[in-house]
Amino acid sequence: MGRRTVFFISDQTGVTAETLGQSLLTQFEAQEFDQVTLPFLDTIDKVDQALVEIDTKAELQGVGPIIFSTLVQDHLRERFIPKKGLLIDFFDTFLPSLESELHAKSSHKSGRAHGLVDSGHYDQRIEATNFALNNDDGTRTRDYDRADIILVGVSRSGKTPTCLYLALTYGVYAANYPLSEDELDAGMLPDVLMPHLHKIYGLTIDAHRLQQIRRGRRPTGRYSTMQQVSFEVRAAEALFERHKIMFVDTTRSSIEELASTILSNTGVERRIRP
Amino acid sequence: MGRRTVFFISDQTGVTAETLGQSLLTQFEAQEFDQVTLPFLDTIDKVDQALVEIDTKAELQGVGPIIFSTLVQDHLRERFIPKKGLLIDFFDTFLPSLESELHAKSSHKSGRAHGLVDSGHYDQRIEATNFALNNDDGTRTRDYDRADIILVGVSRSGKTPTCLYLALTYGVYAANYPLSEDELDAGMLPDVLMPHLHKIYGLTIDAHRLQQIRRGRRPTGRYSTMQQVSFEVRAAEALFERHKIMFVDTTRSSIEELASTILSNTGVERRIRP
Repeated sequence: MGRRTVFFISDQTGVTAETLGQSLLTQFEAQEFDQVTLPFLDTIDKVDQALVEIDTKAELQGVGPIIFSTLVQDHLRERFIPKKGLLIDFFDTFLPSLESELHAKSSHKSGRAHGLVDSGHYDQRIEATNFALNNDDGTRTRDYDRADIILVGVSRSGKTPTCLYLALTYGVYAANYPLSEDELDAGMLPDVLMPHLHKIYGLTIDAHRLQQIRRGRRPTGRYSTMQQVSFEVRAAEALFERHKIMFVDTTRSSIEELASTILSNTGVERRIRP
Repeated sequence: MGRRTVFFISDQTGVTAETLGQSLLTQFEAQEFDQVTLPFLDTIDKVDQALVEIDTKAELQGVGPIIFSTLVQDHLRERFIPKKGLLIDFFDTFLPSLESELHAKSSHKSGRAHGLVDSGHYDQRIEATNFALNNDDGTRTRDYDRADIILVGVSRSGKTPTCLYLALTYGVYAANYPLSEDELDAGMLPDVLMPHLHKIYGLTIDAHRLQQIRRGRRPTGRYSTMQQVSFEVRAAEALFERHKIMFVDTTRSSIEELASTILSNTGVERRIRP
């Protein structure tokens, strides 16, 4: 008996099916799955092709697949009947109770979530992403007035990916500023940050993990020594405490978790939602 | 009667609850909702506070809220009983049928999806993000051997955000290269790209939309004239066709849709999943 296959099926991008399916599968840690995404199944022909692929796989593996579907168009959903396995149909499951609560029929039209977008919404993400790129790593500080949030921390503490995620996912304007050795020595924030103290959020990280990350980039030199790394982490945390800056430990957190923690603790508004 | 409020409730980040809720709500286009995310409800106290907030809102608005919940721990879920509204409980709905199909009990433990992560998984995203940043805008071409994909297009066609999204969401190594005026004039790709032709994917965009975007950045000058913009778009598409490069129009697509289209058409493997 082969490893069980999980299919993510959609008449759109499949992002929703993947996200929801992953959340459910992580509740079954002991099991491993092959994973296949089949997006853009927006015609009967494509649905039929997907069915052949799924049924063939089930036959070969001798075990039914798990299928997460966000097919939303009725004629596609009615057509999509795999021979074996468990079909989890997100829209079919929840739309009826929502229709009843909202006293409205759902559109059952594709191309809504993650699909065609108005350009204003698109602009928000692109502009926020450009802002994150232009205000990365303290290279520019004159636009801090426009920032929703400014992440501060030592080199390689996770500032850049968190800023980019905040921009792409939520349209939030996030800048970041790396603490220099002088600033860490003095335990003081630079003048350029002081008017924006209310927007500053600190990132910290376990020293051993930081050393491991830095060594991956620069194997030799003081930058990656345990002495240097420990000093920087301790000094950064002391600085956050002195300035009463909220901070979060990035060591064991995913980027999603960091972004969600920061938004939740600061009250910064999402301009868009996933 | 006030606008109905939608709550996204989670003992983790709330990302899954938001994704589920957004997908379903987009099926009811005519309605508008206030949206509130309450993440990290991981103690009975926090659940009780959330209940007060939700019940108070329902009382004030005179209409029941819609609540999307991904509470996974049993004692929290049992505690979470709002007085009014529709509760859509994601795990409660799907875990029983998955347990039965997989012949296994789910862990009912929090901190899985988007939560605690092994560092290898984290590294993939960070490394892919660094790769996208270092190989943005044609500034470096010597690492193209390591690229999974190289996006090519005119300035402001959407290359950078798409690369960053591919990196952050899927751990895919995506570089991008802007076509210069000389290359567009000659209708030829530069030598540096030729060994990587199989990895190249083109982006194009409607000329009017491109002009609008460029004007937002540089209101005057040739860069934003309709003549220049039209020439570049036509020349880029001709170049894609000459070299038999697949390309996608970014004008009306979300970043999710672009990323999903590119992965689907190229067969590039996701290193991680959302």
